[in-house]
Amino acid sequence: MLKRVERVKQLISKSGLDALIVTGRDNVRYLSGFTGSAGVLLVSAEKALLFTDSRYVTQAAEEAYAFEIMEIEKTWPEHLAEILSEHRDMAVGFESEHVTHQQFLRMAEVLAAVELKPVKDMVEGLRAVKEEPEIEKIRRAVSLVDEAFAEILDYIEAGRSEREIALELEFHLRHRGAERIAFETIVASGARAALPHGAASGKLLEHGDLVVMDFGAVCNGYCSDFTRTVLVGGAPEPWQEEIFEVVLEAQGAGIAAVRAGVPASEVDRVVREVIAGRGYGDYFGHGSGHGLGLQVHELPRLDRFSTETLEAGMVVTVEPGIYLPGRGGVRIEDVVVVRENGAEVLTGTAKDRLFSV
Amino acid sequence: MLKRVERVKQLISKSGLDALIVTGRDNVRYLSGFTGSAGVLLVSAEKALLFTDSRYVTQAAEEAYAFEIMEIEKTWPEHLAEILSEHRDMAVGFESEHVTHQQFLRMAEVLAAVELKPVKDMVEGLRAVKEEPEIEKIRRAVSLVDEAFAEILDYIEAGRSEREIALELEFHLRHRGAERIAFETIVASGARAALPHGAASGKLLEHGDLVVMDFGAVCNGYCSDFTRTVLVGGAPEPWQEEIFEVVLEAQGAGIAAVRAGVPASEVDRVVREVIAGRGYGDYFGHGSGHGLGLQVHELPRLDRFSTETLEAGMVVTVEPGIYLPGRGGVRIEDVVVVRENGAEVLTGTAKDRLFSV
Ligand SMILES: [Mn+2]
Ligand SMILES: [Mn+2]
Repeated sequence: MLKRVERVKQLISKSGLDALIVTGRDNVRYLSGFTGSAGVLLVSAEKALLFTDSRYVTQAAEEAYAFEIMEIEKTWPEHLAEILSEHRDMAVGFESEHVTHQQFLRMAEVLAAVELKPVKDMVEGLRAVKEEPEIEKIRRAVSLVDEAFAEILDYIEAGRSEREIALELEFHLRHRGAERIAFETIVASGARAALPHGAASGKLLEHGDLVVMDFGAVCNGYCSDFTRTVLVGGAPEPWQEEIFEVVLEAQGAGIAAVRAGVPASEVDRVVREVIAGRGYGDYFGHGSGHGLGLQVHELPRLDRFSTETLEAGMVVTVEPGIYLPGRGGVRIEDVVVVRENGAEVLTGTAKDRLFSV
Repeated sequence: MLKRVERVKQLISKSGLDALIVTGRDNVRYLSGFTGSAGVLLVSAEKALLFTDSRYVTQAAEEAYAFEIMEIEKTWPEHLAEILSEHRDMAVGFESEHVTHQQFLRMAEVLAAVELKPVKDMVEGLRAVKEEPEIEKIRRAVSLVDEAFAEILDYIEAGRSEREIALELEFHLRHRGAERIAFETIVASGARAALPHGAASGKLLEHGDLVVMDFGAVCNGYCSDFTRTVLVGGAPEPWQEEIFEVVLEAQGAGIAAVRAGVPASEVDRVVREVIAGRGYGDYFGHGSGHGLGLQVHELPRLDRFSTETLEAGMVVTVEPGIYLPGRGGVRIEDVVVVRENGAEVLTGTAKDRLFSV
């Protein structure tokens, strides 16, 4: 934590700020270690304060050892105003994506003596590059989805609903120790497999359906994200086999392109090139991947608009898909660590064939 | 939906606005029927538009029949700017608690020709008074928690962890048809029962523990919220029995005070008076209840700061507790509908004794 605080202090001064107010819950956790739901940080060259209410004071003192704990009795903008009252004309950054406009209005009112400056992605930028202990936590979250997927395969059969499968999957994850699921589980079968975000519905699985299963677990606060596509019954039709092979090739090419120093957009370009080269360019609408950590979607984004360069320690997904409206779709998603010389793939589940159940 | 849209149009004009931008997800759902995660409404005397992206256009057209569906290709502020470009000097309200300051900055940039006015609790105020079909959905969510609680009693015993019990409870709720749990399940045993927000931990239940269990289900988007306190093993100690009786009496007095026309703060006063009268005034820190609906915490609040008056059709919890630091606590929570002549209690589980397991 101390290193993280030192790093953010450097960014604060580099941005011409005198202090930063941190309100994003994961940013608070990342910098301070505090896991409660109500915490705000004030960080400056001399100060590292954590404001929380009476419910959390004890917990905060244990978790956020590098911070001085301040108990909130009113609202946090008022307490900040008291602390900053001696400092006129200070430039104070705040996380503009993590305060509502209503909170901003309150800050502007009580903090009239300081200059409030909106800040975007400052702590998120630090979070993009993981320390090894963070990678270990992600590894654990990934291994849970590997295990749960192996277990669910026997349960998948024609006649069961997408929702039943999602529920069973979530039970496996929780029983194995997941704190919670990382996002609403996607089980999209048949024509619904052509919906990139087809949350599990009441639809029953039918013989011949492709089933896209996309789910994740949270362990010690860190997320995993995983997609495999399963075929219900027998042998795939030629079109199913074809799109599977194209997605597999594209995903492999994407992973092969991952390396420290490569632009994140380059991974997306490589993936897209394979899919377009095989004539499916119009059927792959979303980006090729994203960072993950305390959030399931973090920096860097792996899409054509991405401006980030991959750095060693970043953890990203590579997840191309092909979606044929009215027919179905295939997606394959793994989690990989960016290393100096390439990608370390954390996901353990095989992907070289369509899983037939 | 049409009635709701008419009502919000009246509020818009009463507030001196020409239009309202609705961004709160539950507010969007309430007014339009759209259940997707990405939707923004623009409502004016003549217009009712829903902006969403390509993923949701079909779903939006089915669900939000009273709205014209506009597909977003850029960001919603840009699309709003196009629609409003002919209307200079219009006063346009936006939900200041449901846009980040970053989104506000973007709106202010592209919507420079109109006057943006922060609005608070406009749609939330409408949502506080439920229509009968909404009450039926809450009734269903309440009956699920009644059933799950009856089922979990056999499972509770010394040696099990709080987390195991929470997990089992969630399985019951989901298997019975809950879309999801309404909030992180509270199972707080022994000294932890003195924490009003003691989310289930790894602590094992011990003989003689009081266990506060507070949980809820979501059905068709609507929430329930329920608390009972269970004693692990045999007969209660005198202090356990005493605080149980005081909480029960206070809760009964609170429910008896619920009636259309009564100030919400009056219910809290009555509850607090019973608890203070028995000498436990210092051990009941939180409010006496809250509205619930699409959110588990909605207007009105039932606490001393509440300015609302109860109206027929409001649905609220009544949930006093006593928390003795280091020893334990008791809370009892029911969901009630405010009727002209009193409270209709939706919760069916008995509460006249400590549940002994
Ligand atoms: Mn993903
Ligand atoms: Mn409650």
